[in-house]
Amino acid sequence: MAGSSVSWSERAVRLLRRMNSFYSAGSSRCQCWHFSVGGMEVGLVPPAVLKQLRRFPEVFSFKEEKRLELNPGLASYHDRSSAVDRVLQRLREEERFTCLQGWRDEKYEVMPQFSDPPLMCMERAATSLFGVKRYGVHVNGFTRQPDGQLAMWVARRSLSKQTYPGLLDNMVAGGIGSQKGIRDTLIKECAEEASIPECIAAAARPVGTVSYTYEDGEGVFAECQFVFDLEVSSDFSPSVGDGEVHQFYLWPIEKVKDALVTEEFKQNCALVVLDFLIRHSYLHPDTEPNYLELVVGLHRPL
Amino acid sequence: MAGSSVSWSERAVRLLRRMNSFYSAGSSRCQCWHFSVGGMEVGLVPPAVLKQLRRFPEVFSFKEEKRLELNPGLASYHDRSSAVDRVLQRLREEERFTCLQGWRDEKYEVMPQFSDPPLMCMERAATSLFGVKRYGVHVNGFTRQPDGQLAMWVARRSLSKQTYPGLLDNMVAGGIGSQKGIRDTLIKECAEEASIPECIAAAARPVGTVSYTYEDGEGVFAECQFVFDLEVSSDFSPSVGDGEVHQFYLWPIEKVKDALVTEEFKQNCALVVLDFLIRHSYLHPDTEPNYLELVVGLHRPL
Repeated sequence: MAGSSVSWSERAVRLLRRMNSFYSAGSSRCQCWHFSVGGMEVGLVPPAVLKQLRRFPEVFSFKEEKRLELNPGLASYHDRSSAVDRVLQRLREEERFTCLQGWRDEKYEVMPQFSDPPLMCMERAATSLFGVKRYGVHVNGFTRQPDGQLAMWVARRSLSKQTYPGLLDNMVAGGIGSQKGIRDTLIKECAEEASIPECIAAAARPVGTVSYTYEDGEGVFAECQFVFDLEVSSDFSPSVGDGEVHQFYLWPIEKVKDALVTEEFKQNCALVVLDFLIRHSYLHPDTEPNYLELVVGLHRPL
Repeated sequence: MAGSSVSWSERAVRLLRRMNSFYSAGSSRCQCWHFSVGGMEVGLVPPAVLKQLRRFPEVFSFKEEKRLELNPGLASYHDRSSAVDRVLQRLREEERFTCLQGWRDEKYEVMPQFSDPPLMCMERAATSLFGVKRYGVHVNGFTRQPDGQLAMWVARRSLSKQTYPGLLDNMVAGGIGSQKGIRDTLIKECAEEASIPECIAAAARPVGTVSYTYEDGEGVFAECQFVFDLEVSSDFSPSVGDGEVHQFYLWPIEKVKDALVTEEFKQNCALVVLDFLIRHSYLHPDTEPNYLELVVGLHRPL
């Protein structure tokens, strides 16, 4: 089963299936309740979370057909956000969910689709408990070498980072916080994580999205990463900024390709690299047997 | 509803929804029967087709749970293909389905997934009656202009072409017939349709897939196009080859962008251009409100 006997292609497919585990047979999907705020569906809540939320009837109403409603009396962005925050603080104090021990004091917007007006905001660490969609920006940093081949900048996450310490990551990546734009997030994260000045970061080009939904013991992760390619000159190097990154490496694409299907790579970042490999013709549909499944698995609806 | 009052973005979303109509509420999806050959599911058959197939119990067995099986006694590729062909010829003579009047004498392979061994082949014009997956190659031909902007080669289909006469199309596109590879199809179609010599066509780069499923009165169209980008020099022009194309145009990207959401563009080719616009940064997620929905809609599972 394990080790080098499994082909790269098969490992890549397994990676995508893991990152879309919420859609697989045996997931909690059909036991989840539809979470709505202001009459609009914004998430899916797994059974273990529902059990805790029943303790707060002043905030959550349990309706027919597996519908969990935020109390309609909470009519404003502020009131909804505050009421849910009080519940989450309580659950955090009671140590009900591991993810809440990673409280970040960082808010994400809650809305049906990315372009919709936000209905409330929620602590980032809690969003998986409600299956609320999360959005981020990921940047493929690369240089073109004299022989025309590309080399990619890969980050190793800080060994003391709260989530996924020491794993390989894209050159720059970050979540889109409340009231933040995509380009603004990109410029800010480039500066903070990799010391990339705005005049260089501004050349990053939007090239699509990678979207997937997985679940684990901490809930449902429905995520969309807005993907950018940033070609930098061979005399430029990113450098460690705010301490989120341990070290940057400039690797030949083939080395990155090999690494992305290993446990050393943070999995959603591996998907972003896989999308890069496809767009930049490092995979060919005549020789990559799972080509279509890979492309489709990178772009699942949220 | 119509005309210039509808934004480009809204028109693009509507295009994608039309091309994925099989997934929309009100489609025939839940009335379709699962078509299996040799124990493997290869298609979905709509009610109007099922009614006709009941007349051929020596070829098709109707099972529980909406399963339509090709008679297991038809055990070889050849026997299966011949038996179904005889049924289709009969239905064609009886003029039961409009699509069969467009008989092409061109076979497509039938298999669960593209990389699986084919179980049988089927007349191209009949595949939609069984919701059999169809695969093709589409080539975005473009040149880089002195100012760095791209211009794209667009084909107008022959006015006498059987399907979609006179509509706008990608520079080169063609279905992948039985026993044909992807690259082979690309080289062949480049030569036949656009008089592009192999030395130029060989520079085409695989950049992903576009996949969608729609239905109309002629059945279920579950299609995957393998997408290639082919940058040609500004002193090269494609020219009309076998008569499939009426004329080629070299248009600024903005003109192609406007055209793709009109009825003048063949819709699946418009999707291929839309994917090009996204990969080449002609849309930005901060300003294109439906960015995620567009990306996802271009890459639906088959």
